[in-house]
Amino acid sequence: MQNTPFDTPDVTLITPTATVATPTHGGRAKCLQRLVRLNLPVPQTVALSFSTVHQIATGVLPDVDGILQRFKDGCLLCVRPSSEDPDWGGPGAVLNIGMNDARFVELSDRIGADAAAQIYKRFVQTYAIHVARLDPDIFDDIADDGQIGLGQSLRAYEDEAEEGFPQSPARQLAEVLRSMARAWEGTTARLLRQAKGAPMDAGLGLVVQEMALGLGQGECGSGVLQLVNSRTGENQITGRYLSQSQGREALDGGTRALFLERDPRGPSLEELAPEAFAELNAHAALMRQRLREEMQIEFTIENGELHILDGVRAKRSPQAAVRISVALAEDGIIPRHEALLRVDPHALTELLHRQVADDADRDVLGAGIAASPGAATGRIVFTAADAQASAARGEACILVRRETAPEDIRGMHAASAILTERGGMTSHAAVIGRGMGLPCIVGAARMKFHVQRKKLISEDGRSLSEGDIITIDGTSGQILAGAPKMVEAAQDDVFRTLMSWADAERDIGVRANADTPADAQTARNFDAQGIGLCRTEHMFFEEDRLTPMREMIFANSAQDRKATLALILPMQRADFTELFRIMQGQPVCIRLFDPPLHEFLPHDRAGLRDMAEALDMPVSEVTRRVESMGEYNPMLGMRGVRLGVTVPEIYDMQARAIFEATLDASRDGAPVVPEIMIPLVSAKREVEIVRTRIDAVAAAVRNERGKDFTYRLGVMAETPRACLRAEEIAQHAHFLSFGTNDLTQMTYGLSRDDAGRFMSDYVKLGVFNEDPFHVLDTDGVGELVKLGVQRGRAGREGITMSVCGEHGGNPESIAFCRAVGVDYVSCSPFRVPIARLSAAQLAIRDKMESGKY
Amino acid sequence: MQNTPFDTPDVTLITPTATVATPTHGGRAKCLQRLVRLNLPVPQTVALSFSTVHQIATGVLPDVDGILQRFKDGCLLCVRPSSEDPDWGGPGAVLNIGMNDARFVELSDRIGADAAAQIYKRFVQTYAIHVARLDPDIFDDIADDGQIGLGQSLRAYEDEAEEGFPQSPARQLAEVLRSMARAWEGTTARLLRQAKGAPMDAGLGLVVQEMALGLGQGECGSGVLQLVNSRTGENQITGRYLSQSQGREALDGGTRALFLERDPRGPSLEELAPEAFAELNAHAALMRQRLREEMQIEFTIENGELHILDGVRAKRSPQAAVRISVALAEDGIIPRHEALLRVDPHALTELLHRQVADDADRDVLGAGIAASPGAATGRIVFTAADAQASAARGEACILVRRETAPEDIRGMHAASAILTERGGMTSHAAVIGRGMGLPCIVGAARMKFHVQRKKLISEDGRSLSEGDIITIDGTSGQILAGAPKMVEAAQDDVFRTLMSWADAERDIGVRANADTPADAQTARNFDAQGIGLCRTEHMFFEEDRLTPMREMIFANSAQDRKATLALILPMQRADFTELFRIMQGQPVCIRLFDPPLHEFLPHDRAGLRDMAEALDMPVSEVTRRVESMGEYNPMLGMRGVRLGVTVPEIYDMQARAIFEATLDASRDGAPVVPEIMIPLVSAKREVEIVRTRIDAVAAAVRNERGKDFTYRLGVMAETPRACLRAEEIAQHAHFLSFGTNDLTQMTYGLSRDDAGRFMSDYVKLGVFNEDPFHVLDTDGVGELVKLGVQRGRAGREGITMSVCGEHGGNPESIAFCRAVGVDYVSCSPFRVPIARLSAAQLAIRDKMESGKY
Repeated sequence: MQNTPFDTPDVTLITPTATVATPTHGGRAKCLQRLVRLNLPVPQTVALSFSTVHQIATGVLPDVDGILQRFKDGCLLCVRPSSEDPDWGGPGAVLNIGMNDARFVELSDRIGADAAAQIYKRFVQTYAIHVARLDPDIFDDIADDGQIGLGQSLRAYEDEAEEGFPQSPARQLAEVLRSMARAWEGTTARLLRQAKGAPMDAGLGLVVQEMALGLGQGECGSGVLQLVNSRTGENQITGRYLSQSQGREALDGGTRALFLERDPRGPSLEELAPEAFAELNAHAALMRQRLREEMQIEFTIENGELHILDGVRAKRSPQAAVRISVALAEDGIIPRHEALLRVDPHALTELLHRQVADDADRDVLGAGIAASPGAATGRIVFTAADAQASAARGEACILVRRETAPEDIRGMHAASAILTERGGMTSHAAVIGRGMGLPCIVGAARMKFHVQRKKLISEDGRSLSEGDIITIDGTSGQILAGAPKMVEAAQDDVFRTLMSWADAERDIGVRANADTPADAQTARNFDAQGIGLCRTEHMFFEEDRLTPMREMIFANSAQDRKATLALILPMQRADFTELFRIMQGQPVCIRLFDPPLHEFLPHDRAGLRDMAEALDMPVSEVTRRVESMGEYNPMLGMRGVRLGVTVPEIYDMQARAIFEATLDASRDGAPVVPEIMIPLVSAKREVEIVRTRIDAVAAAVRNERGKDFTYRLGVMAETPRACLRAEEIAQHAHFLSFGTNDLTQMTYGLSRDDAGRFMSDYVKLGVFNEDPFHVLDTDGVGELVKLGVQRGRAGREGITMSVCGEHGGNPESIAFCRAVGVDYVSCSPFRVPIARLSAAQLAIRDKMESGKY
Repeated sequence: MQNTPFDTPDVTLITPTATVATPTHGGRAKCLQRLVRLNLPVPQTVALSFSTVHQIATGVLPDVDGILQRFKDGCLLCVRPSSEDPDWGGPGAVLNIGMNDARFVELSDRIGADAAAQIYKRFVQTYAIHVARLDPDIFDDIADDGQIGLGQSLRAYEDEAEEGFPQSPARQLAEVLRSMARAWEGTTARLLRQAKGAPMDAGLGLVVQEMALGLGQGECGSGVLQLVNSRTGENQITGRYLSQSQGREALDGGTRALFLERDPRGPSLEELAPEAFAELNAHAALMRQRLREEMQIEFTIENGELHILDGVRAKRSPQAAVRISVALAEDGIIPRHEALLRVDPHALTELLHRQVADDADRDVLGAGIAASPGAATGRIVFTAADAQASAARGEACILVRRETAPEDIRGMHAASAILTERGGMTSHAAVIGRGMGLPCIVGAARMKFHVQRKKLISEDGRSLSEGDIITIDGTSGQILAGAPKMVEAAQDDVFRTLMSWADAERDIGVRANADTPADAQTARNFDAQGIGLCRTEHMFFEEDRLTPMREMIFANSAQDRKATLALILPMQRADFTELFRIMQGQPVCIRLFDPPLHEFLPHDRAGLRDMAEALDMPVSEVTRRVESMGEYNPMLGMRGVRLGVTVPEIYDMQARAIFEATLDASRDGAPVVPEIMIPLVSAKREVEIVRTRIDAVAAAVRNERGKDFTYRLGVMAETPRACLRAEEIAQHAHFLSFGTNDLTQMTYGLSRDDAGRFMSDYVKLGVFNEDPFHVLDTDGVGELVKLGVQRGRAGREGITMSVCGEHGGNPESIAFCRAVGVDYVSCSPFRVPIARLSAAQLAIRDKMESGKY
């Protein structure tokens, strides 16, 4: 059929050549045109553009009679929304427009009075509620019987609306169009779709389609079909069919609905109408091939004849999304790069962790910041020691603390999940939780934490005790009572295939932050290209190291410090040797000791007494010295390179441990080239001083062992000043790694541990668009990184630039890092796949823009 | 006398036309040439250049015989050092060179054997010790009698040196030159002069001068004279004369030395030799006029005839420096701008505070960081409450604390000086101390502070108790036992004259940081051009405000917060009214509430109990809530505009108090235009939100009072991000004030309160050239200020830019501020004069460079 002269792009019959496009008419209109082009049996359809619908909302109607003239005389119509992105929602479809007393009579002849009355009754009720906006209660007592119910419904309408039910199909259509257009412009609808990413001025198109009735004589009914399982992504014909139904009723049809394919569980469409089923399947296969996507098809059978009413992108879990994309590419339907673009990197998170099932019962005790994704169930414990005891008994436990500190590390390793009252996205618990892939909720401040009394009070006042079972849903941030249903992580071959394609595309490196052998193993499992940040401080918290560490802190001379550190040396060497062995010659970037020394000192009476005994000092003296080491702002205090300069024996020992481990590990495998990173640098001279000592240690080790090795010395650029002075700092550094966590803290003047108190208010009020600890602030922090990269490269040709810390795994932040010329990002092992895919997508989009794809 | 042909610039007879310059021959040689040009009776003098002396040190001697030929046959010579700056030190003068057995005989004839023997004996001893480097002990038992002593000395020399005393004048002179040249090149001498600012390669010249003997027949003697008092700068002939003496012996001559001018205290040169005295006075007046400086003159009378041997710049206290410069300008000898350049701004500090007298006995108990200059004596107290009690009894007290916190404010006001164990140049105690002009030493960590037990242990182990009298010398950083002698502050008319000349020259504004009416009065006394920073938090610490403040903090609703803040409103309004009245229409920039709320909460058991009573809550609940408000890094926490956004009732109340005070104060005087400053901004939206509310408060006050007023709203740029985003932030701000204290903390990632622990090590090791809290780090922090100024001006034309905080009063930092285009600096009231003079000097130097002066 050709467009008639009065067709315009604003109101157009959908034909293979009509001017219909997603940005002007919406995705549904465009999809229907593609189905028409495939010669599928699509009922006659007219598309109304965004601008037409916007006009309708302001009161300017199109030529409704003209629209009606495009359709067979006496047919019924339906109107469906067609927005640019189907996820943005929209008003519900209105079916059976045109139904009135006269057509009821006609239709009764054709399909029987009961079916006709059903259709008319439904239309009256839908129209009353959604178009005339009458109170739904008026239909509460309507009889089920078709014809009696119809009469009651028409009377109820007349009573409430104070006029008879409109009989003119033109008026009906006009009112439906007007009500749908206005619903789209309503404030609630706008806010809802903006929350899903729609722009302020997102438009709505509408499609007016001739109804295939699905009720009447012969085999009539409707259903939906798709070729894949939405949860797993595997090939499986799924959907339902219900005789004598319209729209999507089959999905709510319960046991009355048929399976599609022959199925042991019950009767199927394939058995009922083998020809229609075969035709439907052929259409579905064609749609997958030509629409290059797994679609869910809405179809109607009218007296045995198949009609395809609509096709929408099949819903899919993250796991299914991966499998579907890979299958489409492997079947040659889409190229690999397109398969990569179709998977949302954020969604990968769910694949890498156990999750609370979608259909689980959630008994919510409270909520906090979703700091580390995944879910775990266990018994409540309130101390790190109890967590270890619990692990020793083989019982899963949840560690509940007001906050965590480095001394809780072993307890955190023993726990299945972590819950804290305080802290934000980058508090200690959150960072460690993400690093270990442990579900974690922080800042759950609306619950009450009586850690001393071993009580936890839920937001609604329920009291929980040690040993009670709870579930931490680190993906949503909810604390749940008991053990809801879970779904397991799924990192299968298909996932690995997708990742290998990503690696072939991306042009920025991805390393992992890994502090322990377990982390390193995870990093390798996720194919990280080395370790970008190995924090060494945890190595000093092990039981056997803490006492020498404390003796070292209290030592009065460099000589004494050296002697106590010598006790720790062999243990550190063993730590590094194991890391190097696991990483099999891949680069390992080790950050020298960073935290303030007072983190290693006890603060409670028992701990002070123990320490006094261990060091053979009076408790009063120990207490005085511990107190005198306290700091107002430990974050900005005596730590990092400041310790390296003023208490150089620690770095000396660490450098020796690294170099000796380098030689030990190189003996059995690929030669190791360790990278040594100096934290918290703010001035060039700090680097010079540390470098001189480390070079001396290297020379000594070479001499003692009679073997050569190389190493790279670099700087963690995490103060604004290090970025500003990067040119001169780079003269002494093989690499600069931007520690965007601390850099964000300092650029904003905002402690990550304290920001939790107001960050959610701040994001809600739009003061910050995003939590800058979560998404890199490209305007402020980003400018410093950019300056740092530019100046660093000006200072030393061939210098390696990287970003480590939480932002390294964030897709938006990776885009920025890549744009400013960073060589690699480093993130938690569990975010490595996300980073790899994000990086690939960025490279692909660049190639597409430059016409290479 | 003309130069003879063999004269070169390297070894030259000083004549009016000889080539002699300070940068090549040193200041003494140049000054002597100027005296020669004035036709003063200067003995024949030869100048050796820096390069000649450097050659001598390496072993290459000039033509010594040639030098000797320039002098009368048989005369004695002296050699004196002539470095570029007399402050850089140098080897001592050597007199009487050329003395030997033959000349002893000749001289015995002329001036008597005793005098000749005295001269010879002194020369032998000086030569032995300083030239031949013999052990001084060998002269321990030499007889006083001239001739016997001479013989003993010659024998002692011969015994020790294993050769007779050298008789050749040429050899004597050569050895003297060599030993002086080498002394200058020694490491100790170099380090000493570098500490005074000399460059690595500073040179030494030497002057060889014919001796006027000062011993012999007729009136012979030597002395020094200057026309001003070195301490006060007032006109007063000062100096001494001693018959039969050489060099500067008259100054050590005790009661034997004569006064110069007729004096009731004893005999004078004026009486002894009126003609010589008159001639000397005439020479001195001529020198002041023509050398354009107050000089100290070294003179010798030989048989009644006056010789001028040397002139050096008269030493002067800071007070004298001001008076001398002003007098020279008022006498038309130098222009005003030169008078301004001659006063070191740093030295003004001493004029503004009481000081420990130079000649006081110092019994040092310990030392710390000299955080606020001036000295005060008082009894030790260990708590703020005791300080108030002490003040109530009218007893001066010294507040000794481990550190101070805002709740100590009233105690600090009551104390005469402050001493703390912890903290650095910008810790709370230091900042408040400087603001109040209170002597303060912080970071005295080598003393032991047992504040609970009310004991203070000195560095050498002495125990001090409450009530013991000590003295805090905040200028030197020393803690002294007892009450040493003091000198009072001197801010007199001459000082005001100099300052008025400075104000006429400078082109950058100077305001004061002032929090209280007393501060504001000081600011006016020092002619600040308004208040650049009025911190308001102290206003909440007053006894009558603390309880409502705490109720406000614990309130559960905005309504309750408003109600409790309403109690504080009238008191704040009164505070501001008084400030505005004192400042008489000058601008007052008020910073809105900045500190974290937990600073207002008690932390000890007694305080918690009091608070529980006052608020009628269980202690356990109060304790829990106080604890839950604690922060890891309060500096980077919930404070400043973050409170303004999330607890807006505080700023609402403050704005109302400011506006109502504006109307109240404007009624009686010049109309007040208050400036309101938002602290800790890091994002534009923070400013928008606060501004909207403050505009609303202004509208409400205008409406209620039926009167109009204007105000200016601005931003304290103290986070790196505020500087980077200054362009957009400026769109909502009438002014930006760079808070360089916090900005330095964040740019370096360095807490000012914790930096004390390692800052001195860092400066010693050259990691930082200077403490960046003391001198603005122009490389890093400065770049952010510069970017902020540029971007802020790009964002809003005519925006006012300023720098507040400690750096505002530092001369080096002011130079930077002026260079980057800041409109005014604001600093502690006591630093205002320093800033005014520094700013004037900068403007003058610019004019000189561009030829306008």
